[in-house]
Amino acid sequence: MDFELHDLPDDEIRRLAGLYGPLGAAVRELIDAAIRTEVDDDTIRETTTQISELAATLRTKQIDGAFGVRYNSNGVGMAWGNAVIGLANGIAPPLTLSYPPEGGSRAEFTLGAPYEGPPGCVHGGISMMVLDAILGSAAARDEKAAYTGTITVRFLRPTLLFTPLTATAKVTERSGRKKIVQGSIADQHGDTVIAEGVFILPKESNARPLTSVDGSAGSSG
Amino acid sequence: MDFELHDLPDDEIRRLAGLYGPLGAAVRELIDAAIRTEVDDDTIRETTTQISELAATLRTKQIDGAFGVRYNSNGVGMAWGNAVIGLANGIAPPLTLSYPPEGGSRAEFTLGAPYEGPPGCVHGGISMMVLDAILGSAAARDEKAAYTGTITVRFLRPTLLFTPLTATAKVTERSGRKKIVQGSIADQHGDTVIAEGVFILPKESNARPLTSVDGSAGSSG
Repeated sequence: MDFELHDLPDDEIRRLAGLYGPLGAAVRELIDAAIRTEVDDDTIRETTTQISELAATLRTKQIDGAFGVRYNSNGVGMAWGNAVIGLANGIAPPLTLSYPPEGGSRAEFTLGAPYEGPPGCVHGGISMMVLDAILGSAAARDEKAAYTGTITVRFLRPTLLFTPLTATAKVTERSGRKKIVQGSIADQHGDTVIAEGVFILPKESNARPLTSVDGSAGSSG
Repeated sequence: MDFELHDLPDDEIRRLAGLYGPLGAAVRELIDAAIRTEVDDDTIRETTTQISELAATLRTKQIDGAFGVRYNSNGVGMAWGNAVIGLANGIAPPLTLSYPPEGGSRAEFTLGAPYEGPPGCVHGGISMMVLDAILGSAAARDEKAAYTGTITVRFLRPTLLFTPLTATAKVTERSGRKKIVQGSIADQHGDTVIAEGVFILPKESNARPLTSVDGSAGSSG
C-alpha cells in the first residue's frame, strides 16, 4: 500500500485533470448508454467492436496494474483511479467531497441507471460504497489517515435514482486510537440510509492527509 | 419498485444476453483502459470524442430511465442493468452468483484497476457492495425476497486487486420475519472482510425469487 510521489507541478496536475476528466466523463456516458440502448442488433455488434478498438488504442501505452494514489511534494493528490472519487474512473459517480467549516464531510450527487439495484432504486451496495467513502473522508479530515475497522449500515427506505442526494458524515466520538463516525444519505424528505463506522488510527503513521486537485482533503477509501 | 413482466421466450432472452453481454464486457475493458492509459494528449482527446460519438449512437434509441428488473412468465430474469450482477452494466464486475447444494450463495471473482481504493487494494466500499449482493442473494435463495435491514461489515485486512477472491454467505438464524445472514470475502489466506446482515421478510409479499438467465436464483440488491 504505497502512496507514490510524482513530483509534478500543481499546474501540470491540473492540466492532466483536464485530459483525464473528460475521458472519464465520456466513459461514464457510454456505460449509461450501453445499459439503456435499444438500437438494432447490428448496431450493437458494430458498436461493441468499436469500443474494443478504442480500448486497444488506449492500451498501446499504459501503466502496469492499477493507478495507485499519487501525490506531488505539495501534497496535491491524484486519486484518479479511485472507484468512488476517481475522475478518470467510469465506475465512480464520481463523488466530489467537500469539507464544510462546521466539520465533517459532505457530497451532493445524483445517481443514474448504472447504479440500479431494485427497480428505479439505488443498489444497496452502492449506498454502502458512498457511505464508506464519506465516513472515511470525515475520519481522515482533521489528521492522519485512519483505517476502517467496522461500518454498520441501516437501510430506512429505498433511495431513488435520478433524485438529488446528499451524503454527510462527522466524527462523533474519539477515544484513544479509535474514532466513531456517523453519516447518512438523504433525499429531500430526509435520511434514506444511515451508517456508523469505527475507524482506527495507525500506531505509528507516516501517512498524511492528501489534498485533491481542487485543494480539498481526500480519502482513498 | 415494480418488477416488469416482459413475455419473451427463454431462447430470446439468451439471444439478447449474447448481444448485451459482449457490449457490457467491451465497456468494462474501456473503463480499465481509460484509467491506465498513458497515450499522448491528442490520442486521449480523439478517443474521448469517439467514445462520446459511440454513446450518442447507442442513445439514438433507448429506454427512458433505468433498466429495471425484468423477467418473463417462466421467471427467467434480466437484471442486466444491476450495478453488481448486471451483464450489460460496465460498473458491475459482474458478480456471477452460484448456489451450492449445501446452501447459501457464493461468487468467485477477481477485481482489477477500476475497483481500487488504497493503492493496489480493493476499495472498502466495493467490498461492501459485493457483500451486500452476496448476503442479499443468500437471504433470497430459499423463499420470497427479503428487504435488507442492517449490514455490518468488519475489515480484517486489505483485500488485494488482481487476486482470486471468493465471497460466500449463508442464513445462520431465522426468527419470525427476520433472517440473519453471515458472509465474507476471502483470498487464499482466509477472510479479508466479514459481514452480518439482518434481512426482513415483507408482511405480505407478491415478490418471487427470480431466476437469472443461467437458471440460478437472483437478488436485485
